[in-house]
Amino acid sequence: MTKLSGKNIIGTSLSAEGSITFNAENPANGQKLEPGFHEAAEKEIWLAIEKAATAFEVFRKKSGKERAVFLETIAEEVTALGDSLITRCMEETGLPEARLKGERGRTVTQLKMFAAYLRDGSWVEARIDKADPVRTPPKPDIRSMQKALGPVGVFGASNFPLAFSVAGGDTTSALAAGCPVIFKAHPAHPGTCEMVGMAIAKAAEKTGMPEGTFSMVHGKSTAVGLAIVRHPLIRAIGFTGSYRGGKALFDVANSRPVPIPVYAEMGSTNPVFILPEAMRQNKSNIARELAASVTLGVGQFCTNPGLVFYEPDVESSFADTLSRSLEEIKPGVMLTSYIQEAYQAGVSKLAGTQGVRTLFKGTVSGSGCYAPAYLFQTSADTFLNDHTLEEEVFGPSTLAVPAEDKQQLLRIARQLGGHLTATIHATENDLQQYAELVDILEQKAGRLIVNGYPTGVEVTHAMVHGGPFPATTDSRSTSVGTDAIRRFARPVCYQNFPQSLLPLELRDDNPLGILRMVNGTYGRG
Amino acid sequence: MTKLSGKNIIGTSLSAEGSITFNAENPANGQKLEPGFHEAAEKEIWLAIEKAATAFEVFRKKSGKERAVFLETIAEEVTALGDSLITRCMEETGLPEARLKGERGRTVTQLKMFAAYLRDGSWVEARIDKADPVRTPPKPDIRSMQKALGPVGVFGASNFPLAFSVAGGDTTSALAAGCPVIFKAHPAHPGTCEMVGMAIAKAAEKTGMPEGTFSMVHGKSTAVGLAIVRHPLIRAIGFTGSYRGGKALFDVANSRPVPIPVYAEMGSTNPVFILPEAMRQNKSNIARELAASVTLGVGQFCTNPGLVFYEPDVESSFADTLSRSLEEIKPGVMLTSYIQEAYQAGVSKLAGTQGVRTLFKGTVSGSGCYAPAYLFQTSADTFLNDHTLEEEVFGPSTLAVPAEDKQQLLRIARQLGGHLTATIHATENDLQQYAELVDILEQKAGRLIVNGYPTGVEVTHAMVHGGPFPATTDSRSTSVGTDAIRRFARPVCYQNFPQSLLPLELRDDNPLGILRMVNGTYGRG
Repeated sequence: MTKLSGKNIIGTSLSAEGSITFNAENPANGQKLEPGFHEAAEKEIWLAIEKAATAFEVFRKKSGKERAVFLETIAEEVTALGDSLITRCMEETGLPEARLKGERGRTVTQLKMFAAYLRDGSWVEARIDKADPVRTPPKPDIRSMQKALGPVGVFGASNFPLAFSVAGGDTTSALAAGCPVIFKAHPAHPGTCEMVGMAIAKAAEKTGMPEGTFSMVHGKSTAVGLAIVRHPLIRAIGFTGSYRGGKALFDVANSRPVPIPVYAEMGSTNPVFILPEAMRQNKSNIARELAASVTLGVGQFCTNPGLVFYEPDVESSFADTLSRSLEEIKPGVMLTSYIQEAYQAGVSKLAGTQGVRTLFKGTVSGSGCYAPAYLFQTSADTFLNDHTLEEEVFGPSTLAVPAEDKQQLLRIARQLGGHLTATIHATENDLQQYAELVDILEQKAGRLIVNGYPTGVEVTHAMVHGGPFPATTDSRSTSVGTDAIRRFARPVCYQNFPQSLLPLELRDDNPLGILRMVNGTYGRG
Repeated sequence: MTKLSGKNIIGTSLSAEGSITFNAENPANGQKLEPGFHEAAEKEIWLAIEKAATAFEVFRKKSGKERAVFLETIAEEVTALGDSLITRCMEETGLPEARLKGERGRTVTQLKMFAAYLRDGSWVEARIDKADPVRTPPKPDIRSMQKALGPVGVFGASNFPLAFSVAGGDTTSALAAGCPVIFKAHPAHPGTCEMVGMAIAKAAEKTGMPEGTFSMVHGKSTAVGLAIVRHPLIRAIGFTGSYRGGKALFDVANSRPVPIPVYAEMGSTNPVFILPEAMRQNKSNIARELAASVTLGVGQFCTNPGLVFYEPDVESSFADTLSRSLEEIKPGVMLTSYIQEAYQAGVSKLAGTQGVRTLFKGTVSGSGCYAPAYLFQTSADTFLNDHTLEEEVFGPSTLAVPAEDKQQLLRIARQLGGHLTATIHATENDLQQYAELVDILEQKAGRLIVNGYPTGVEVTHAMVHGGPFPATTDSRSTSVGTDAIRRFARPVCYQNFPQSLLPLELRDDNPLGILRMVNGTYGRG
């Protein structure tokens, strides 16, 4: 592999104008990793954004097919990084090889899925209403389609160093829409970021994309991110991370002279409801599988199930069964010491909350960022009266809340804030009895799951990875799946345009063969 | 006709708990119109919103067909108001009978168009990705569709007392999506609002919609609107009006504990570019038609062309030709004395701006809110250096800006902020020479017009009445045309749901026959 430079990627140049440097750290042993990375100076960030704005004039007019080839080439270049990418990423994140190879597969699949979506081309939602010159007054010819917004700032997540990072979902959907990307590398895995960033830069060059279509800046301080969000040429933000971080960017973006949309996926507690008959018939399976979901990836998923609601069962306590299942799971290493500390603070706060009992605490041995699993329990009354119990604790922790009866369970559901997911374990009979619960949860989450677990977000057309605030800052969108492209586009309408001046998508003969709505009727004609 | 009550419509009750009352005024003669209208008290607003939230649980589950019948019945009830609606509306707005009859037609057409859109049902963007149990790991069944957001607050516009008011585009699209509406009546035409509000209430009752699906509150003070925007059960806002008003609501909505989307259409200056060959070939026609567009409805359209750019022509000045065309147009009455005063302030400010010349001022005779047309002129340099010259002056005024050459014309275009529309007058030859202008304007406006005028917004599927900030607070949407429904919905995803629990739109047999994407392929199968 090429040696890492520790520099920012500004268009086609490597740049290190800033004086601050920082190093990544191996969370398994606290070891500092070389090289040092240069935090981007403000002038480098501005240059990257100016290049993006210039690139946009060309990039926005590339055909869907051309952008598809670009994305496919990124997939090839990321794949070509081979084991060196996995090795560096393991060092920086402590994540196991199999998981990272899986995540690389997901990243590549995602790029290819968007490429196929662009090749089909129908995503632009072309609409044509033809003129009627004999009407009084004459009806004009009106045509519209989705067009790219402009340069987008993307912030990578700590917990998905590949699939929600440099060539992850936000970057891929923004590039697919025709928006240049300025990527803010996550300081926990800057080396991984550099490798993937260089792969994108290479793909851009190979496929003739204009310089500035992609840039990547490093930074540990919030100044780098804020400089991106505040720059007038930035048109939208994609973010995956904490509530604090996402909400701060949202507020800054809305206080700009020209506000811009922020798509911040800020995680959630992902309530799980276990209904009575399912509990009676399937308690130990649910407990085992739920324990696996709570501890998957050391609980470092925004879809981690952090709340479990059920009606108390007479035989043996579900919480005990869940405790025993958690006991069997080996503790893992968290991504960074910072995340580990935040997790410790979170579980300590929960443990110290009045009315909350610690039912289980995993044991950890050895140094490094190991994190024990936790199971807490509280009464429904306590939960209903303390809103902080709904807050996310990022890590392998969950809170069991037995409810007195169906009415109390529904009351809890009604009181919930926004979440990415909501899960119901139920038999057919349960579902009939608790139809209202589905109605309520539909208003609380982006994705509802029956007899499954929220971890594992399928990259597919129908996926909705989003949900009402505070899960995200924009419930009207998804950050996973092809519909994510819509976040980075807006409709533009053409009135009485001559054919030659119309985008191909809107011409009478439909040269791209896309699905369109013509005079109210859908078709590819 | 029934006597006006002057009361708020809270669900199925008329309510007048507030102590403040106000009267509408005839702008043509300053006459106070009876009755007094009761400004809604905070508890009435809260009650309306609570009723809306309760209604939502039922209304959201009404089928598209049921909501279509509701909208069609509103259209019938509005039509049944007959001449009494037009008479009251003329008194309150000073708008001529023909215009108001046209606007009523537009309102009714709009309701019926959304009804037809609901009957087709494909707007929900159903997506289905079927399970693959043999994949490793097994692929779950994932299905998603658009679902209503919840209770929506809608603010009526002063300048469209029917089509952008009580039963206007925002109300219609919100109800179509399945969202109850709390309507804030415009204080300039409260009697018109009451009549249409009662028509909606009647239609809701006739078609079995739950109480609270629609409420309407009166108010002259900003407190009424703010109480709506701040209420935690309100999920989105639709607004048409001034920049000041829209931006204030946007800021309040974003500072809520749970921010909500605000779709504020705040108007714009709608630049018109006249290219050289078109100018040479068609100067007097363009001047005549532009003068008509500038003064249409006494200039009280958010699509009013307030900026005209062109390259100077050697023969005779375009501005002189435009002046002569404006001379031929009779001045009209503005909607309110408040709007007239704001117009006077706006034109006085323009007239007093250094480098701006007043080329034409219409004459007005008689009392009442008559407004003279104005034509101003400034140099391109002055325009490029004074951003305030791009601000909207709501009324029959326009600013002519001759540019030195093509490069300066393009520089002006590049510097423009967001507008609802941008217009180009051009021959085929001009368009070839100025292809770049279209590229630039595409990024500045929601709708581009060739050889036409921005006034006149067709209600149709492909219409985009929107545009980048400050034209609107959300460029990703339209407030006219069927796509407006998308503003009041968000995607919800169902994972591994049994068929019986899925919405009809997502069931295997597609009982509604809607267009869906199944495993990446569009069809009605």
